[in-house]
Amino acid sequence: MYAITLVIQCPDKKGIIADVTSFVYQQKGNIQYIDQYVDRENGAFFMRLQAELDEELCTYNSFVALFEDDLAKTYTMEWSHQHVDYKPKMAVFVSKYDHCLYDLLGRYKSGELDVTIPFILSNHADLAPIAKAFEIPFLHIPVTPDTKAKATQQQLEHLQQHDIDFVVLARYMQIIPEELIKVYKNRIINIHHSFLPAFPGAKPYHSAFERGVKIIGATSHYVTEELDAGPIIEQGVAQVSHNHSVSQLIAKGRDLEKMVLANAVKHHVAKKVMVYGNKTVIFT
Amino acid sequence: MYAITLVIQCPDKKGIIADVTSFVYQQKGNIQYIDQYVDRENGAFFMRLQAELDEELCTYNSFVALFEDDLAKTYTMEWSHQHVDYKPKMAVFVSKYDHCLYDLLGRYKSGELDVTIPFILSNHADLAPIAKAFEIPFLHIPVTPDTKAKATQQQLEHLQQHDIDFVVLARYMQIIPEELIKVYKNRIINIHHSFLPAFPGAKPYHSAFERGVKIIGATSHYVTEELDAGPIIEQGVAQVSHNHSVSQLIAKGRDLEKMVLANAVKHHVAKKVMVYGNKTVIFT
Amino acid sequence: MYAITLVIQCPDKKGIIADVTSFVYQQKGNIQYIDQYVDRENGAFFMRLQAELDEELCTYNSFVALFEDDLAKTYTMEWSHQHVDYKPKMAVFVSKYDHCLYDLLGRYKSGELDVTIPFILSNHADLAPIAKAFEIPFLHIPVTPDTKAKATQQQLEHLQQHDIDFVVLARYMQIIPEELIKVYKNRIINIHHSFLPAFPGAKPYHSAFERGVKIIGATSHYVTEELDAGPIIEQGVAQVSHNHSVSQLIAKGRDLEKMVLANAVKHHVAKKVMVYGNKTVIFT
Amino acid sequence: MYAITLVIQCPDKKGIIADVTSFVYQQKGNIQYIDQYVDRENGAFFMRLQAELDEELCTYNSFVALFEDDLAKTYTMEWSHQHVDYKPKMAVFVSKYDHCLYDLLGRYKSGELDVTIPFILSNHADLAPIAKAFEIPFLHIPVTPDTKAKATQQQLEHLQQHDIDFVVLARYMQIIPEELIKVYKNRIINIHHSFLPAFPGAKPYHSAFERGVKIIGATSHYVTEELDAGPIIEQGVAQVSHNHSVSQLIAKGRDLEKMVLANAVKHHVAKKVMVYGNKTVIFT
Repeated sequence: MYAITLVIQCPDKKGIIADVTSFVYQQKGNIQYIDQYVDRENGAFFMRLQAELDEELCTYNSFVALFEDDLAKTYTMEWSHQHVDYKPKMAVFVSKYDHCLYDLLGRYKSGELDVTIPFILSNHADLAPIAKAFEIPFLHIPVTPDTKAKATQQQLEHLQQHDIDFVVLARYMQIIPEELIKVYKNRIINIHHSFLPAFPGAKPYHSAFERGVKIIGATSHYVTEELDAGPIIEQGVAQVSHNHSVSQLIAKGRDLEKMVLANAVKHHVAKKVMVYGNKTVIFT
Repeated sequence: MYAITLVIQCPDKKGIIADVTSFVYQQKGNIQYIDQYVDRENGAFFMRLQAELDEELCTYNSFVALFEDDLAKTYTMEWSHQHVDYKPKMAVFVSKYDHCLYDLLGRYKSGELDVTIPFILSNHADLAPIAKAFEIPFLHIPVTPDTKAKATQQQLEHLQQHDIDFVVLARYMQIIPEELIKVYKNRIINIHHSFLPAFPGAKPYHSAFERGVKIIGATSHYVTEELDAGPIIEQGVAQVSHNHSVSQLIAKGRDLEKMVLANAVKHHVAKKVMVYGNKTVIFT
Repeated sequence: MYAITLVIQCPDKKGIIADVTSFVYQQKGNIQYIDQYVDRENGAFFMRLQAELDEELCTYNSFVALFEDDLAKTYTMEWSHQHVDYKPKMAVFVSKYDHCLYDLLGRYKSGELDVTIPFILSNHADLAPIAKAFEIPFLHIPVTPDTKAKATQQQLEHLQQHDIDFVVLARYMQIIPEELIKVYKNRIINIHHSFLPAFPGAKPYHSAFERGVKIIGATSHYVTEELDAGPIIEQGVAQVSHNHSVSQLIAKGRDLEKMVLANAVKHHVAKKVMVYGNKTVIFT
Repeated sequence: MYAITLVIQCPDKKGIIADVTSFVYQQKGNIQYIDQYVDRENGAFFMRLQAELDEELCTYNSFVALFEDDLAKTYTMEWSHQHVDYKPKMAVFVSKYDHCLYDLLGRYKSGELDVTIPFILSNHADLAPIAKAFEIPFLHIPVTPDTKAKATQQQLEHLQQHDIDFVVLARYMQIIPEELIKVYKNRIINIHHSFLPAFPGAKPYHSAFERGVKIIGATSHYVTEELDAGPIIEQGVAQVSHNHSVSQLIAKGRDLEKMVLANAVKHHVAKKVMVYGNKTVIFT
């Protein structure tokens, strides 16, 4: 017995749910979870389905091949699949801030994140001791205006050599080059300290303090070529008051960033995030 | 064209989703929403489905009859159905507190609640002017130990005479008699100011103040014979501090009660609440 | 015996707290609450103090006069005072949306808002029946480009004739003219459906839907000449998902707007809001 | 220049705020923060005050001695003081769960917690590698019914030998013996996964699942002799649904426990928590 997760999007059509569920049933499979959503304005259909099948009656590979030949073509689906037991390979990019890294690694060691972490990559050497303490290889690839192109090349090589499935930017303070974004489309997760109302620019917590906001927030999103404008995966907020100094705002913000990023990673790992246009459907 | 909502629970079995969705497809229907949940420990299957059908190809009544004969029997389903355009008839029971009543009536007048309100019923006359201001009939049925049996009889008559679908206890400070609970099983919604940790008894806000809690809560649930122990529909919480006096706790609690009760009513009206054992599945 | 609330801001100086508290003590007063805050970056001092005094030992008027002559001058204070039993006169401006109006009037009737409401004013006649149901005078002053100047004049006259203390814009869909803003500086409270990130423009919920945000928010602020940019009094947020249609976002937004506006009004009435620069100190 | 924090509670009396603030002023001090609260029902007064003083005009020790002789006696105060730069010595007790330990140590390394951690103590050896990775001594003191008395003795010795200021039970699954509670009254902080309504007993998340709650919570409190009934320092909650399995509830609970415990520790370290009766005043 094995379990497979299917994630599907396609133009909405009558009968699609019946066809997909019947297909699984014909392969002697049992549907364990099904989530479905239709964006009526855009006529777009979304489905996430987990089914249990018997290797002897229909192997994983033949299930996938049959589905592709049969339904995927009929409905012009964009779809992907994953073995439920598969642990995605996650690379973590960091700079000097350590709070998100500690949080992710703590969750990883606790068994809360169903991933493997082949390496941590940084443009600075500062966090190498943390990687060492958690026994994860640490790659130091400095990035300067001069070395940027070469650094990108090195990053790509490491990612491909380790067959990385997705990248988490745990407060990696560098702009991701287009080459990487193209190869890892909707597979690079960033955490951004955005506010209500949003404060762009270099010092958002200082702006928030000046404006006297009563709530701060953080947003995790996929990286696209437009800075901080990619599809939103998760958002979180916290109440603050005039009484919070800038440094207290930053401390509250760190907690938000940790929580929001961890939840975004969990959604991604469970293949619960579907991107379309510049937004997401998340089957939680 | 018409739309129907089906709400189903039954023992979990292979192929059930495929069978239900294919059935709809065979009647030339289009599934607009499908939500499904399996409680694996108890082997229980739950589904809420909304489909659009063509009156000329399959009338509402024949759809329902076919479904009953075919699938409902095969899978020993407990199921119910509702025309999407149907506005349930809601009776509101109150005593002297007016905040939940104002909130519900404001939402009703704004068109936010898809119901009709044939009457407001109370054991006191105090809130009659509110009913009048909102142009809704007000029934005053006093309840004393002596008149309790007769009052119950009168309540039942009014409920049945107006063909009431469900009852909302908007801070009705009387215990609901068994006769009513039996007739309106999982159709009487109560709002309860419960706390973290829970404070039973007559003055929960005073207990919460004494205990120095930092969070208060409210719970909306279906009424069962065991007091305040019925299936939970919705819960809400708010942060408080030592600085809140008992009366400020009560004011915060009122806001929670309004919000939590309104959400519970909306879930119920949309047939999104399924009860099993002493808990609920809510497809939001 | 009477109780007085003092609200003070001035440049921060050594000894100021000691001086103020000693002054109260010298008038045989007893301090019931004291809240204090210093913005160190700007060297600004803020205090809210409630004291109980004996009319026979020091009248309200003589207390105020002594304080003005003595401390207020020494420390170049901006300060104000209010009798604790005083009920501020609140005017409510509305257009066609009724949810905030129902909410405020419900709270008012419940005794939750310590105000009087001399009138409700609108540029449309639609909500007159609500005012009537709650037995509050309703003024219909249409506003067109041609009549705008005259309408402003009428509004001012009504406000001054009724000695209004502050104005609540309960979804009043008109820009407030400068003349009113000047006369009622930091005394006109607006509710704004702002988002994370902020969506300016006419249809914020549609923008939020397009962007796929996971959290929506509302902000209550004092009206200044720059649109929606005045000092923030209160903010609230709610979680949403891809599953919320635009109309469901709007419904969630209505609940936020009601709650956030009501809290802002309560803070203002209790003289807990102090404005400086473009931000607020709120002693909750 | 130095800064001192005073934390005071005593019976409420007229003039006390004026007396305390004047005292600081007479020692040429400048009050930086003042927070005050009166429990009117119990006639109890609470104050937290931070002042900056000049070592040459009034040493720390003489300030403390003068205050004790003068005000503390006059008002029969219970009071304590702390140098603002002092880093309290915190011992961490753990068993086998590692999530709170990772969280605390991550915050400690990030400089977010203003403490030193002389040792981590456990009744099991499992978490020794984490202590090693963070370079903190790890004491393994097994506890069995037979060795309990001796273990308590050893614990006390270590605590006193390292001059520990307070103890954090980061999911330490043992009942704390009375001897320790007495010595470290209101200085042992526990984290408890309590629910709404509260579920006592060994498997609260299973009970919560059975009951179908929509919100789970966690509570941090000081340890008293009555189990899980000590003064509450901090509480947090999270929304859940029928869709959360027991293990997902537990994962959500872990995040709550981490956040709530960390906040409780921060409040304690900043001397912002005052205990009276069985409740707390927290000046945040």
